Amino acid sequence: MPNPFFDNCGPFKITELLSSIESQNNKFKSDFEVSDIKDLVSSNENHITFYHSKKYKDAATRTKASFCITYENLKIDLPRTCTPLVVKNVLVSTSMITAKFYPSSIKDEFDNTVKLIEDTKYKNKLKFGKNVLIGENVSFGNNCSIGHNSIIEKNVKIGSNCSIGSNVIIRNSLIHENVKILDNCTIGKHGFGFFPEKDNNLRYPHIGIVIIEDNCEIGCSSTIDRGSMSNTIIGKNTYLDNQIHIAHNVKIGRNSIIAGQVGIAGSTVLGENVKIGGQAGISGHLKIGDNVEIGGGSGVIKNIPDNSKVMGYPAKNFREFLKENR
Amino acid sequence: MPNPFFDNCGPFKITELLSSIESQNNKFKSDFEVSDIKDLVSSNENHITFYHSKKYKDAATRTKASFCITYENLKIDLPRTCTPLVVKNVLVSTSMITAKFYPSSIKDEFDNTVKLIEDTKYKNKLKFGKNVLIGENVSFGNNCSIGHNSIIEKNVKIGSNCSIGSNVIIRNSLIHENVKILDNCTIGKHGFGFFPEKDNNLRYPHIGIVIIEDNCEIGCSSTIDRGSMSNTIIGKNTYLDNQIHIAHNVKIGRNSIIAGQVGIAGSTVLGENVKIGGQAGISGHLKIGDNVEIGGGSGVIKNIPDNSKVMGYPAKNFREFLKENR
Amino acid sequence: MPNPFFDNCGPFKITELLSSIESQNNKFKSDFEVSDIKDLVSSNENHITFYHSKKYKDAATRTKASFCITYENLKIDLPRTCTPLVVKNVLVSTSMITAKFYPSSIKDEFDNTVKLIEDTKYKNKLKFGKNVLIGENVSFGNNCSIGHNSIIEKNVKIGSNCSIGSNVIIRNSLIHENVKILDNCTIGKHGFGFFPEKDNNLRYPHIGIVIIEDNCEIGCSSTIDRGSMSNTIIGKNTYLDNQIHIAHNVKIGRNSIIAGQVGIAGSTVLGENVKIGGQAGISGHLKIGDNVEIGGGSGVIKNIPDNSKVMGYPAKNFREFLKENR
Repeated sequence: MPNPFFDNCGPFKITELLSSIESQNNKFKSDFEVSDIKDLVSSNENHITFYHSKKYKDAATRTKASFCITYENLKIDLPRTCTPLVVKNVLVSTSMITAKFYPSSIKDEFDNTVKLIEDTKYKNKLKFGKNVLIGENVSFGNNCSIGHNSIIEKNVKIGSNCSIGSNVIIRNSLIHENVKILDNCTIGKHGFGFFPEKDNNLRYPHIGIVIIEDNCEIGCSSTIDRGSMSNTIIGKNTYLDNQIHIAHNVKIGRNSIIAGQVGIAGSTVLGENVKIGGQAGISGHLKIGDNVEIGGGSGVIKNIPDNSKVMGYPAKNFREFLKENR
Repeated sequence: MPNPFFDNCGPFKITELLSSIESQNNKFKSDFEVSDIKDLVSSNENHITFYHSKKYKDAATRTKASFCITYENLKIDLPRTCTPLVVKNVLVSTSMITAKFYPSSIKDEFDNTVKLIEDTKYKNKLKFGKNVLIGENVSFGNNCSIGHNSIIEKNVKIGSNCSIGSNVIIRNSLIHENVKILDNCTIGKHGFGFFPEKDNNLRYPHIGIVIIEDNCEIGCSSTIDRGSMSNTIIGKNTYLDNQIHIAHNVKIGRNSIIAGQVGIAGSTVLGENVKIGGQAGISGHLKIGDNVEIGGGSGVIKNIPDNSKVMGYPAKNFREFLKENR
Repeated sequence: MPNPFFDNCGPFKITELLSSIESQNNKFKSDFEVSDIKDLVSSNENHITFYHSKKYKDAATRTKASFCITYENLKIDLPRTCTPLVVKNVLVSTSMITAKFYPSSIKDEFDNTVKLIEDTKYKNKLKFGKNVLIGENVSFGNNCSIGHNSIIEKNVKIGSNCSIGSNVIIRNSLIHENVKILDNCTIGKHGFGFFPEKDNNLRYPHIGIVIIEDNCEIGCSSTIDRGSMSNTIIGKNTYLDNQIHIAHNVKIGRNSIIAGQVGIAGSTVLGENVKIGGQAGISGHLKIGDNVEIGGGSGVIKNIPDNSKVMGYPAKNFREFLKENR
């Protein structure tokens, strides 16, 4: 699937890409044209990919990409069809190449394509409040409403029967049907992803989007960041309370219930039917199983298997927590 | 007291009400007219009420309601004057009947009755910023100010000498005198109350309001949800810092001080002169006494008696916490 | 340095100042003119200062102020050149005198000096969205952008290459160069500082400002309060994630990284290169050293020396935390 929202400025000649990173192959000469950058699994011929950790060895051995940004000690895992490009820092180089393909994904300045909804084709299709702004590449299903001062920035597709509150800002998002987004939410902005550099950090591109499936409700003043290389997803019929923060690349399964002020850090994946009490926090890059219950105030710092009930900081088995805290 | 803000669509014939729930009495025939739905205590003749747990037995035996939604095993506690209506799920049935009386209390779509304040009778009475919107059934005392882009939606009564910041949204609320509400607050939206149903949760009505008494201050970006069957109340001279979340039906006593990012879950009741440190969380349905101090970061999961000082997660006696954490 | 943003209504005759507080020296007669109120260290001749705790004895013995609000038992520490003014409550009296010099620092009502940016000299200098409001005493460097509905209230100086999101509110702040402030932030409002009084708390003045140095990024829906007697400072190249609360007088060093929903209470000072995980909280009046790492969810309640890694609630040595929680 081509990226739905960010324009791919490619293809680029491989020599041109190499000149923008400090690869040891930088004397490499070729007119080969690279059409996109993808992860190891979704890459195809003519794509460039990246491989920075042994834990992705399996995917690396099978990648279909023509080029791969990687380290000296990892390059042997790549198939013969994939030319390794050895660099000092794979993620930084990947970030720079991604920025070349998708320059519009780095900056999140306000969308200056917006118009007052009265000046768009939606003026007769939607119920809307005062001062509603609509950007380019936005669409709506039937029977939607948008509250006062809300800004639907560019690259948003909203399904039927959705209700958007007031003072809401959305960009780079797919909202399915029958979704309610309450007041003051900010959805689809880039995540907190950058490479720390002394005195001037380097932001990396966020080419992912936010997907909110059918029947969800997002509480007031919540923030949901879009993904970096993958998407941030809220599964069907999942309800979020107020002041919740969902970081980039997080995926939440269906029928989940998340109480107020919960925060979920980047790239964590939650199963279906998960219940999370107020103010709980979940670290990044974790896997939380189906039917998990997490008590209010918990701090989850490791994976949780299906059907578990946990509480505490760090979160542990619920009965153990109760026993220790009688 | 009749509900100040939600129009009662009743009375309804009892047969009509029964047809909307799956009561075992659904062959019940009568032209009896029911005028309102109330809790066990505040119900009077011609009202319908509900009784779903033995812990309310005392109130059940004394209710003046003519009808009561209940379970088979609880119906014997009701007085002779009250006809039991046995159902499978008391709360779901209560929710459906409440929705019938108060349909406008379920949805919280933006208020499309608002007008620019310049087009209302308040234009000469208030100090106001740009783009201020005022809904129906709103009133103000003397000497109030409202900042830019704020929206006073329908059903709000604000007393004298109140200062509302910018980007604030309020509905269904009684604000007494000399109250300050800082920027970006959202006050009076429905709480996080619904019955989980696979693939499509069922929201229950919130017919309560938010009451903020004299001399209170509410910090920036805070959210205060209105009550479901009762009200959410912030007592006189209580100060809330920024980014606080107060859930539905919470009641906070006077002269309390609540620091930043605190969250209080639904239906918890706090006494007077309570002090809560930053980021503390309090579970739902608890009773916190007068003069209680709760340390920053605490997680309170049980009732706390008057004059206690607690800290920790779960919160315990303050000295004990210090001793264990030397 | 004179206060950059709050007008000093002085000088006042010392007799006039004394009449506004209940000093035991209130029969004191003099035409002496006091030009400003400052802390012990920055005071000069003709200034009034305050001294309320033995821990500032060193500074007290060397103050150059002509007058000092203090307690009976502390006055002996003052130099001969400084006349002690003995009061019952030093902080309350200081607050009242500060309010006399800087009356505009107490109230934070919305700024009614703002104009639509189209009606200001900035209309050709900036990239801006719809409904942007600009107050008095505001300036911008080159190449800045401001999103929709944002309000730059009075007393804000923004350097070059800054990007302000939508729905942002800023006042009383110095924003240096290349700073990004994302959507829905509120910056520069007074802190949560007041003297609790039965039924009607007494606010104290906040004459400090917010300073955000070069290359910083402030995440969506964050709040940064201005200082009371000193300033709130975010050091160069420090990045804040979404929903962060920074209280008054906090100072954060350079190159720090602070994840989502962190809260830092008043007057705490952080060194350089500090990393703080999501939802961590830091109590007020603490000193956190350089190169400190604080794990997500931690609750820091005491000072942390340079180069430490801590986690837990209360936060302790990281290895100890891991060992205890295997």
